[in-house]
Amino acid sequence: MSEEIKVQLTTKPGEKPDSNNLSFGKYFTDHMFIMDYHKDKGWYDPRIVPYAPIVIDPAAMVFHYGQAVFEGMKAYLTDSGKVLLFRPDQNMKRLNRSNDRLGIPEVDGEFVIEAIKKLIEVDKSWIPTEKGTSLYVRPFIIATEPCLGVRSSYTYQLMVILSPVGAYYSSGLEPVKINVESSYTRAVRGGIGFAKAAGNYAASIKAQENAKKEGYSQVLWLDAIEKKYIEEVGSMNIFFKIGGKVITPEINGSILEGVTRSSVLTLLQEWGVPVEERKLSIEEIYDAYKEGNLEEVFGTGTAAVISPVGELHWNEHTMEVNNGEIGELSQKLYDTITGLQSGHLQDTRNWTMTF
Amino acid sequence: MSEEIKVQLTTKPGEKPDSNNLSFGKYFTDHMFIMDYHKDKGWYDPRIVPYAPIVIDPAAMVFHYGQAVFEGMKAYLTDSGKVLLFRPDQNMKRLNRSNDRLGIPEVDGEFVIEAIKKLIEVDKSWIPTEKGTSLYVRPFIIATEPCLGVRSSYTYQLMVILSPVGAYYSSGLEPVKINVESSYTRAVRGGIGFAKAAGNYAASIKAQENAKKEGYSQVLWLDAIEKKYIEEVGSMNIFFKIGGKVITPEINGSILEGVTRSSVLTLLQEWGVPVEERKLSIEEIYDAYKEGNLEEVFGTGTAAVISPVGELHWNEHTMEVNNGEIGELSQKLYDTITGLQSGHLQDTRNWTMTF
Repeated sequence: MSEEIKVQLTTKPGEKPDSNNLSFGKYFTDHMFIMDYHKDKGWYDPRIVPYAPIVIDPAAMVFHYGQAVFEGMKAYLTDSGKVLLFRPDQNMKRLNRSNDRLGIPEVDGEFVIEAIKKLIEVDKSWIPTEKGTSLYVRPFIIATEPCLGVRSSYTYQLMVILSPVGAYYSSGLEPVKINVESSYTRAVRGGIGFAKAAGNYAASIKAQENAKKEGYSQVLWLDAIEKKYIEEVGSMNIFFKIGGKVITPEINGSILEGVTRSSVLTLLQEWGVPVEERKLSIEEIYDAYKEGNLEEVFGTGTAAVISPVGELHWNEHTMEVNNGEIGELSQKLYDTITGLQSGHLQDTRNWTMTF
Repeated sequence: MSEEIKVQLTTKPGEKPDSNNLSFGKYFTDHMFIMDYHKDKGWYDPRIVPYAPIVIDPAAMVFHYGQAVFEGMKAYLTDSGKVLLFRPDQNMKRLNRSNDRLGIPEVDGEFVIEAIKKLIEVDKSWIPTEKGTSLYVRPFIIATEPCLGVRSSYTYQLMVILSPVGAYYSSGLEPVKINVESSYTRAVRGGIGFAKAAGNYAASIKAQENAKKEGYSQVLWLDAIEKKYIEEVGSMNIFFKIGGKVITPEINGSILEGVTRSSVLTLLQEWGVPVEERKLSIEEIYDAYKEGNLEEVFGTGTAAVISPVGELHWNEHTMEVNNGEIGELSQKLYDTITGLQSGHLQDTRNWTMTF
C-alpha cells in the first residue's frame, strides 16, 4: 500500500493528564489514525484526524457478531528525544494472524507501522516520561457493514488510538494475587484463543470480576479439555521458575502468542537460564510448591511487561511465592525489557524501531 | 423500571423496500429504541428516536473487549391488523442469562418488551405481509465506556432496531447442504457458547466461509473436547429424526438454548412423537444413515424457523437425507410455527403476544 496519509490537525488540543496519575487506557491523545476497507476497493483513505467519537450504524456487524481484533504496543521517548517502538513487526504479524482467524482482510503491516509512526509524531508531546509511563498504542479493526446476516463483513475500519499510560497495575511492579479458575474457560483448541480478538476478552470478564471480589488481581486459566493444564493469566502469558528452570506453557492454539513472552524466552536463553515450553499442569505447580521448589511466578504482557505473582490460590490451596516478594529473575527481566523499550539499555537484537 | 419512553418521530420517513426482495437484515425501519446505563444510575433515558448512526468513542469497550449480547425475534401482522410477537418473554430471559455471563447488567425484561411493542407500533407500516416475510426485531446491548483496562464497562447502551425480512435463506424453505466441521470449534463448556454473545459468532465465521466456498450453507459444529458430539448448526439448533424418533443435543452449556428449539420440543411431545434430548455423536448419525434410518434432519432458529437439511457432509462421507427433499415432519413444524407466529393458527399455549 502506498497511498499518502492525509493529516488533519486538531484546532482544540486537549489538556494533558497528570503523568503521575495516569492509570491505564483512560486518557487519549489529540489525534487518531483511520483507514477504511471495502471488499471491492481494499484498504483505502488512510488519514490522521482529530480524536473524536466515530459515527457508525447501529446495525454495524461489530456490535452483533463481534468481528473485532486489536493489538497493543508501547512507545517511549528516549533521553535524546527520539521515539522508540518495541518489535512492532511482531504485532503486525499477530494482527494478520488474528485477522485470518476472524475472517477480516489482511493489512499491510509495514504501512500500518508507518501510519503509527506518523500518528505518534503528530502527538509526540503526549508521550509521558516519568518512570513506568509510556504511550500505549492501540491499533484495532472493526466490522462496519450494517447487516444482520452472519458472515464476514464487506467493510471494516482500522483505527489507531494513543493513550499515555502509567503502570498497568495501580500498585506498580508489586506482586499480585492470582486465583486459579476452575469453572469458567477462556478458549479451546480450534477456537479463537490465539487471536487478539475482542470475543476472548468478553469471555474472560466474569471470572475476572469474581476473582476481584475475592481479592485477586487476575485469574489463571486452565485448559478447557482436561481442566488441568496452565494456559495463561488474565490477559498475560505466564512463567514459572521451578528448581532453577523456567517453564511456560507451549503455544497450543488456545493461548496468545505474546510478544513479551517471546522476548522473555530469548533473554532467558541468552542468559543461560534453562527454559522449557511445554504442557504444565496445576498439580505440577502445587507439587513444586510443596517441595519448596516454586521459586518465582510471573506474567508477561505488553501492558504490565512483567507482573510478579506473589500468591497463587487453587481450590483450597494457597501458595505463597517467594515470600510474596518480587523474584530476582522477574526484576531482572522487568529492568531489561523496560530498559530496552525506553532506550536506557542498548538494543543489540534489532528489537526497537527509533524515529 | 417505570420511566416514560420518550418518542421523537422522524421528519424524513424512509422508502420501504420491495417486500418480494428483502433478504435478511439489510433494510431498517424509520426508528430505533435506545436506553443508557451507568453503574451509578442503572438503566435510564429510554427513548424512541429516528434510526440513525450512533456516535461512540473509538475507545468504547465493545470495540476492544467485545462485551456485546443480542436477541432476535420476529413480529408479524395478522389479517386483522394486529401485531404478533412470539414468546418474547423467553428472549428476555435469555438476554439476562447472556448479560450475566458477559458481566453486563440485568435488564427489566418486561420493560424492554413494552419498549419493543411501542417501537413496533411507531413503525407498524414497515411490517411486510407477503408469505415468509416478517419484521425482525434485534435488541442488543453494547459496552460504551471509553477505557482500555480489561473489566466490565461502567456504561452500556441497549438498542432495538427493526428490519423487514424475507426468508433467511434466499432459497426459502429448501433443504440445505451442511458440512460437519472437524477443525474449528465454536464453544466449549465453561465458555460463552450458551450466551447470545457477539464473540460466539466471530468465532464461527471462518469455518462458515470455508464451508460456503465448498458449496455448503452452514457448518455443523462438533463438541470441542472429544470432537465427536453434535452441538449445533451455524447459528441454529439441530434435530435428527432417526427410526421414527427425534433426537436433539441436550443443553450442555456450550449450545444456545433456542426459543424455536424449545417450541419444537413442546410440539413434538404434544403430537406424540418420541423425543430425546441427549448426547449424540456424528458416528451415530452416520450409522443410522448407513442403515437407512436417518429420516430427517433440520435446524431450528428464529431467523430460519425450520431449515431442512438435504445433505450432510462429514469427512469423506456424503449423507443424502430424505432424497434431498423437505421431510414431512420438518414441513409440519414449519407450517405450525409460522402459522402460530403469523396468527393463522390459534395460539392455545399462550405463546404469542398480540397488540
